[in-house]
Order: sequence, then C-alpha cells, then structure tokens
Amino acid sequence: MANAVVSQSGGPTGVINASLTGVILEACNQPRIDNVYGAVHAVRGIVEEKFIDLRQISVSTLQKVSRSPSSALGSSRDKPDEDYCRRILEVFKKWEIHYFYYIGGNDSANTCYIVNNMAEKSGYDLKAFHVPKTIDNDLLVTDHCPGYGTAAKFVACALMGDDLDNRALPGVKIDVIMGRHAGFLTAATALARRRQEDGPHLIYMPERPIPMDKFIADVDAVYKKYNRCVIAVSEGIGDTDGKTWAEKLAENAERDAHGNVQLSGTGALADFLAAEIKTKLKIKRIRADTFGYLQRSFAGLQSEVDVEEAHACGRQAVLYSMKYDNGSVAIKRTGNGSHYGVEYFRTDLSTVAEKAKSMPPEFINAEGNGVTDVFLEYAAPLAGKLPETEYLGTYPIVTNP
Amino acid sequence: MANAVVSQSGGPTGVINASLTGVILEACNQPRIDNVYGAVHAVRGIVEEKFIDLRQISVSTLQKVSRSPSSALGSSRDKPDEDYCRRILEVFKKWEIHYFYYIGGNDSANTCYIVNNMAEKSGYDLKAFHVPKTIDNDLLVTDHCPGYGTAAKFVACALMGDDLDNRALPGVKIDVIMGRHAGFLTAATALARRRQEDGPHLIYMPERPIPMDKFIADVDAVYKKYNRCVIAVSEGIGDTDGKTWAEKLAENAERDAHGNVQLSGTGALADFLAAEIKTKLKIKRIRADTFGYLQRSFAGLQSEVDVEEAHACGRQAVLYSMKYDNGSVAIKRTGNGSHYGVEYFRTDLSTVAEKAKSMPPEFINAEGNGVTDVFLEYAAPLAGKLPETEYLGTYPIVTNP
Repeated sequence: MANAVVSQSGGPTGVINASLTGVILEACNQPRIDNVYGAVHAVRGIVEEKFIDLRQISVSTLQKVSRSPSSALGSSRDKPDEDYCRRILEVFKKWEIHYFYYIGGNDSANTCYIVNNMAEKSGYDLKAFHVPKTIDNDLLVTDHCPGYGTAAKFVACALMGDDLDNRALPGVKIDVIMGRHAGFLTAATALARRRQEDGPHLIYMPERPIPMDKFIADVDAVYKKYNRCVIAVSEGIGDTDGKTWAEKLAENAERDAHGNVQLSGTGALADFLAAEIKTKLKIKRIRADTFGYLQRSFAGLQSEVDVEEAHACGRQAVLYSMKYDNGSVAIKRTGNGSHYGVEYFRTDLSTVAEKAKSMPPEFINAEGNGVTDVFLEYAAPLAGKLPETEYLGTYPIVTNP
Repeated sequence: MANAVVSQSGGPTGVINASLTGVILEACNQPRIDNVYGAVHAVRGIVEEKFIDLRQISVSTLQKVSRSPSSALGSSRDKPDEDYCRRILEVFKKWEIHYFYYIGGNDSANTCYIVNNMAEKSGYDLKAFHVPKTIDNDLLVTDHCPGYGTAAKFVACALMGDDLDNRALPGVKIDVIMGRHAGFLTAATALARRRQEDGPHLIYMPERPIPMDKFIADVDAVYKKYNRCVIAVSEGIGDTDGKTWAEKLAENAERDAHGNVQLSGTGALADFLAAEIKTKLKIKRIRADTFGYLQRSFAGLQSEVDVEEAHACGRQAVLYSMKYDNGSVAIKRTGNGSHYGVEYFRTDLSTVAEKAKSMPPEFINAEGNGVTDVFLEYAAPLAGKLPETEYLGTYPIVTNP
C-alpha cells in the first residue's frame, strides 16, 4: 500500500480549501496512490490518528469545499519539534503513508522538511510536499502566495466603502489590517483608490517603522488638505526604537506556540491610535476599526485568480510528488497587467522553511506612508476585478438659483 | 419654477444610493419638476446652499452610484431644530424648491415633518417626502427598511466564514454587531447557520438585557458541548439594571448631536467581553472582533432584493409627491419564502418621525440568547442568496489503517 495524507495548518485563508481540493482530486487520480486521507486539525490530527477517508467525499461536496473559506479539515497552531515529528513519522509508517501534502506557511514547510529528513535517515520512502498559503504573502521564492489575493480583495473592497463612508461623514478613520511582519496585505488597501483624493491617504507597513510624531504630522497634513483622512495601518507597525506599538501596549500579551504576540482579535491598537490623534490634533470625529478575522475568512468573496492558483498549487504538489522526493510549490509570474499569467515550479523545502519575505523597498514610497505604482501593478491582478464606485459630492456646486 | 431637492442623512448604508438614483431618475421624468438638485451633506448642504445639478449627471454614472455604498451626496449628523428648519424653508423659497425628498431614518422623517408644517403655516406649497433607510431596520410602519438586507447579508457572510474559522481553530469568538437599540442586524447573523452545530451559537440583542453571570453561563454551556463557541452581540447589549455594557465602560464616552453614546469605531466592548470570559471560564483561546463600519459600507456586496426595493422606495417618493402633500414611503410584504413580494404605500410623516421599532418578542427565543424560525423567515428573503459552505472535519474518522 502507498497511502497519501493531506492536511492544512496555521491561520485559515479564503482559498486554502481550493488547494485542498486540488490535492484531493489529483491524488485520487494517481494510480500509485491507494488511500487518500485527510488529517483533522493538521499535525495534531496525524499524531492522534484522526484521518478522514477523502475518497468517500463526493465531487459536488468538494466543489463547495473549494468555495468555502477557512480550513475544511481543521487547523492547528502546533509547531512540531523533533520528538513531535518522530511521532508523525511513526504514524505514517503504521498507516503506510508515503505521500504527505501539507498546506500552510513557512512553519508548515519546516515541518515537511524535518519529517522528510527523518524519513530519509530511517530509510522510509516518503514524498513530502508543501503547498503554500498565507494571507500575509510572506513566503520566499514564490512570486506571491495563494490566499493573499482573496484577502487583498477583501481589504480593497472594505477601504473602497470605508473611504466613501468617510467622504459622507468626514473625519479621521483608522483601519488596522493583519500582517505582523509583512505589509503586503495593508499595502493592498491602496487598490481601493481610483481618484486622486481617494483614501486610504496614508498606509503604514511594518517594514517601515514610524515614530509617533511623524504619524501625527502625516495625519495633520492630510486632514488639512482634504478635511478628512483615511489611514490603513498594519497590526505589526512599529516605532523606530524597534518595538511595535502593539507590543508597547500589550503588557500581558498572549503569545502563541510560535512565540508570536497575539495582535488580532483585539481593538487595542486601533483605539490607541485614535486616542493619540484626538489628543494631539483635537480632531472631533475619529473612528477606528480592526478588521480582524473577516480578512481571512469572509464567505463568498474569493478572488477568481486566487482560487484558480490555489487549486493549481494543490494539484502541482501531487504531480511533483510523482517525480521528486520532496519540495514546495512556487509560482512564477510570466506576464503582468492584461498579460498576467503564471507558471508553477518546485523549490527545495529548505528555501521556504521558517523564512519570511518582507515588502521589497521598491513597493514602498519614499516617505514610508504609502505604496508605489510598482506595488499596484504587482497586486492588482491577484485581487482581481473590484467593484466600481461613484461619489457625487465633489461635482460642481450650482452658483445661484 | 418648481424645483426639487434630494438629500441623504445619517449613517450611510449599502443601498441608500439606489434610493437616490430612484428619486433622481423619476424626478427627471416628471414634467411638473424643473430642476433636480442634490444637497451636499444633507440639511447642512441645504442651509449652506450647496446644490448639485443632478440633470448634468449621466445615467451611466447614476448606475454606478446605485451600486456604490455610502451616501453619494454626502451626509450629516445635524439634527435641525425649529430655527434650522426655518432656514431650510427660506432656502427652499429662494431656490423655488417645491419638492423635498429626504432619504434617512426617523430623525430625517422628523425634519421632513417640521419643515412641511412650517411651509403649510406660511402658505408655501411644499411636497415633503421621506425615503426610509437604515441598517438598524428600526423604522415603524414599514415591514422592513432598505439598507437592512444588505447589512444582513454582510453579517451573515461574515459569520459563515467566522464560524468555519472557529471550527478550524476552536475557541471562543465574539463578534460585536451594530445596533444601539434594535437587534435586527445582530439577529441576522443567524442566517449564517446551516447545520445544527453551526455558529453563531449565542445571539444577544438590546431588546433582551442579560446579566453578566447568565452570559458567562451560556458561553460555558456551549463551550462544554462543542469545545468552541461563536457569539454575536449587539453593541447596544445591556445588563438588567438598565445600563448598556458599553455605557458602563464608556466613562468619557463621546456623544453625537442626537445625544447618543458613540459605540461604533471602538473595540472596547468586544475586548471587555473577551476579558470577562477569560477570567471567569479560564478558556485559553478567546478572540473578539468589532465589525464596525464594514457592516454599512462594504463595497460590492449588495443584496439584490435590497437594491431593488431601495430604488423603488426612491421612485415611489416622487410618484407620491405628484398626488399627496407629504409622507413617508413604506413597504408591505405580500408573500414570503419563494413567494416573497412587496407593495409600497404612503404613510404619514408623523407615524415614522422620531419613533423606533424593536425586535418583536416572537423573533427572540425564550432564553433571550437566540432567534426564532419566525425571525429567520422574516429576514432570509431580505439578505437574499448566501454562499454555500462545507466543512469536512466532522466527517467520520477512519478507525484503523
């Protein structure tokens, strides 16, 4: 017997289930693979031997899965150490699992890497493949990550509406966007802009720390120009002293198994920034929203390009496992704009494992409070088609009756 | 000359611009009406004589306006007193405005009412019509309010995704939903449920105050049953002592011109509830999101039924103004489920002005922590078609290799 197992790890995305479906249908179509199992709740499901027989699931159900946000097999924040990985390998041997497909971020790539090395050393034939996913878009090697485009579409639609709301009832609006170390998702709010005076007027990414007085001065300048100001801030934004603002706030910060401070699921940073502006600029109407989990799990708002690519990445992992021993699936962009296109390729697990990508300098403006056209060209095809909006309040005023 | 003015007031919605378009195109098609003006930023735009000539706007632009969230003419939180209304009437006389269409909530209906009474007393011929809008769905007389269905669709899609996210990474999730006095929008999160074990598992509306110990006991019971719990709470939820929890929190609460405490645009209530659960139930993973302005202004996610009805309400206001002196447009439901349908009728401004509707008792379950099937039948056609989702983690576990 040569069985396969697929699983999903880390924070859910809007298209991680499209990758899952890509793996399942391709694996079911490979004569060399016998059973196709799904491990429930990632590596935890493997060590606890909680497997679902995925050949029992109808294609029509899988098609709905593909359109559903979040991880249909459940997820886990466990970060396996050597001992944990040894238990994974033992289960693989017991269940005759020779194909391991793991959909996740750089931590998941690392788990694949460790388990694969252990298998090699013990002479067990294992094909271990990582399928990329993350709304943060921070994996190395690949041009972009499945999951990012859909999250980018969400924040762009959110900011489009939020900017119109701010036009209707002017004031300062702060939106806190996910992204602990990488600003790609916060930067994607810029896709909402259509006209010169559209928000977000200021965009702050973790790659470019900003002292509070510069932040306040930026807001002041925009507010004086437009009588309003829409700001997108990454949850991981930091001061120039090397600490993030959220860290400064979070005295009793909860940390996850990976040692990361919990930034999402609390409105503290947004409220803090609003209070700072209120105190220092005496502006009356200031509102702050923290987008939270809606960014990664909103139902019914996938980017079509993202769905297609996520699905293809899942399928490619299975195809590569027929030729290679291990690897991670990566995307190469072959054209942009109306010629946007991609190719897929295999990269070594070690090139992706545990590493993280930041926004390249050419994506961020000189002042560190916005993005460049180069970034917009990069991100636009990933988010796909966005709604068109109109505002009438700036049309010419009739001068007399 | 007999000119018309249209304007939009209060908090934006996802379809208030569909009502605007309905007014504009019907008014432009009435031979008795000469100029059709749009007042920028509601009553403030009227007294400041900031009018746009709406006949200059192309139909294709208006069609985009109709699909755009927020108030395309701008809005205002001004609550006109007698003196303010007198200035409005003076401007109407100066500009020969004999038709006044005001899209807004119960405060806007009241403004219509006051200005109309003043005009009558001074012998000025004015047709004053109110077009209903509110995501809160709290206007009297009408079966439901344009704007509610689209906001209901947003929160339903949000909870669908959020529940799947909570399945993938179990814990307690709190979502704070808009609605100061009426629970209709919070209740609409129940539309997300498809299966018995789906969240939101608990729904709290302002109509049913709840003491903290009952809230904690509810969460404890759900968590023990499902090992997770998704909660939708209205921002206006209160304790049985008559105070809202947010009021208790907001020592230095900002109040708007209508005397309302500002509840949106801060994550304080959500964070407070999360902390209470953490302290009292010792559950490790607790997250809280405050949906904020996304609920009323997200771009590209209108309910089709809502758009159609909002547009029709705008048009009806103009049609009624050809036959009657004043009034508010209301919706009568003529069928439900697959036979859903509506008719429109005129109601006196006084029946809508300043009054607010609450969730009827038959919409809320006996325990005060959920909704009834009667409510679901009421709300489902308004939100329209929702995405289908699937989760695999609950499928049967394979018992042995």
